Amino acid sequence: MRITLLAGGVGGARFLRGLAAAAPDAQVTVIGNTGDDITLFGLHVCPDLDTVMYTLGGAVSEEQGWGRAGETYTVQSELAAYGAGPDWFRLGDRDLATHIARTAMLRAGLPLSAVTRRLCERWQPGVTLLPMTDDDVRTHVIVDDGEGTRTIHFQEWWVRLHAKVPARGFLPVGAERATPAPGVLDAIAGADFVLLPPSNPVVSIGVILAIPGIAEAVAAKTVVGVSPVIGGAPVRGMADACLAAIGVKPDAAAVAAHYGPGLLDGWLVDTADAGAAFAADLAGIEVRALPLYMTDVPAAAAIAAAAIGLARELLG
Amino acid sequence: MRITLLAGGVGGARFLRGLAAAAPDAQVTVIGNTGDDITLFGLHVCPDLDTVMYTLGGAVSEEQGWGRAGETYTVQSELAAYGAGPDWFRLGDRDLATHIARTAMLRAGLPLSAVTRRLCERWQPGVTLLPMTDDDVRTHVIVDDGEGTRTIHFQEWWVRLHAKVPARGFLPVGAERATPAPGVLDAIAGADFVLLPPSNPVVSIGVILAIPGIAEAVAAKTVVGVSPVIGGAPVRGMADACLAAIGVKPDAAAVAAHYGPGLLDGWLVDTADAGAAFAADLAGIEVRALPLYMTDVPAAAAIAAAAIGLARELLG
Repeated sequence: MRITLLAGGVGGARFLRGLAAAAPDAQVTVIGNTGDDITLFGLHVCPDLDTVMYTLGGAVSEEQGWGRAGETYTVQSELAAYGAGPDWFRLGDRDLATHIARTAMLRAGLPLSAVTRRLCERWQPGVTLLPMTDDDVRTHVIVDDGEGTRTIHFQEWWVRLHAKVPARGFLPVGAERATPAPGVLDAIAGADFVLLPPSNPVVSIGVILAIPGIAEAVAAKTVVGVSPVIGGAPVRGMADACLAAIGVKPDAAAVAAHYGPGLLDGWLVDTADAGAAFAADLAGIEVRALPLYMTDVPAAAAIAAAAIGLARELLG
Repeated sequence: MRITLLAGGVGGARFLRGLAAAAPDAQVTVIGNTGDDITLFGLHVCPDLDTVMYTLGGAVSEEQGWGRAGETYTVQSELAAYGAGPDWFRLGDRDLATHIARTAMLRAGLPLSAVTRRLCERWQPGVTLLPMTDDDVRTHVIVDDGEGTRTIHFQEWWVRLHAKVPARGFLPVGAERATPAPGVLDAIAGADFVLLPPSNPVVSIGVILAIPGIAEAVAAKTVVGVSPVIGGAPVRGMADACLAAIGVKPDAAAVAAHYGPGLLDGWLVDTADAGAAFAADLAGIEVRALPLYMTDVPAAAAIAAAAIGLARELLG
């Protein structure tokens, strides 16, 4: 069984851990969002790729959901002593080694996809992890604060401002000129089906779909998604602020309608949202309801098994 | 009193600490060797500048003589787990922050002299620390090992091979096209006198003197040097291996003769070398003998005071 997923950070990574438990023999390819990537202290940081890599490699901080377990912060406190900013994005010493190694390989001329493969040789995530593109794409947020309308890097809005400043929209800067990384389109075309884990539909999956060619390739496949919204609120993170910016209600059915039947064939919602989702007009999208809180690996595995089951059912 | 010094790493830094104690009101400019600089993990490492900065800033590891006190090695052990080399050059977490901050500023377009000034804002070394040049100069070593005659980076020879492979010579690659960093020639011309601390005469002071314009500027001043060789052996490091490569005996008088009376006006040797030095033909170089082991700051201060005294005597 070959399964390809488009994934962001924590939600995608936890779903993937469940998927590995539910379908240990599946060949899984993960197309990771790199729109959240940021250059800090001259180092290339890939938050979403690393969250997937660390989580599947058994090295993630379970408390945070991202970053390395057992972190120390010596380097960043030294950088602060030099007055080198920013201080709002926490980088642990262990995690920094990843960014140093990655940046050195990028500067040596390797594309991000090859660098990611090299880093994964250590972590053995059990999946093929591909960045959505080897090109630079940076998600910017259009905000309207006291300084007028301007755009800021997604991480500044998300991490520094905690998504508290209303977003007017998102610009995946560079996406229109980017091409899918080697292997991305083949992994989609060659998959039995595509899964959309409960990642942010706007700034994670939405940005991946903004790379020319990816949305068309995904739409041609059987696609089952897992709602990242339960009971009118995102399970994690501030996806509601992202949805609001693009005029989508933070509601499981509204997210499915946002993806649309052209892309999505099946949709898993939480039992709390079953009534509303079944009542909504989601023609062309097969909806199933089950508990969606990924409280532990078995819970995530049950969701992954349901997604696989629905995909197989849709494939007939 | 304005004093300018050409300095390498540990010996220079310890002499400078003595100088600060002996002449707290002197305006001191240090022209630091950058031929030992090396790019590791994509980061720009300046061993000699940092040793001076950390030592005068009270942050050096006293045991090592270089690097930061209280170091940890989390990042480098993580880099090793990625198979990212080299592992023979130890980089502590605290020290790495310096290299990360430096590299980020260099990539942002600041010249090394400006970067060094910024880093020194934190450490307040009490001297003006200038790199010899803002240009890339890398000291290579000509070796003849089993693989034939080739050149390797100085640090590979010095740190990885412990200077055990005989050197045929040294190439300060890039020196002939380099120009002195801003302030270097003015600091020499404007000094009351120039001191050469007990740094390596070949790969530290010799490389600084290889930057076009610096040797001429220094030769025009009253110059007093401190022998780095005591009793036929270098006090620290493997300077004898460097001297051998250029055909100079590891002996205090031979080093003075190597600098020559065109450059050197006064020379301090250890009492153990007094007889041989006074007997040697060092016409034009005024020799004084005193204990030269810098066992502690007062000992280094006594040597610095003697160097100042001799310079003043020579100035008349």
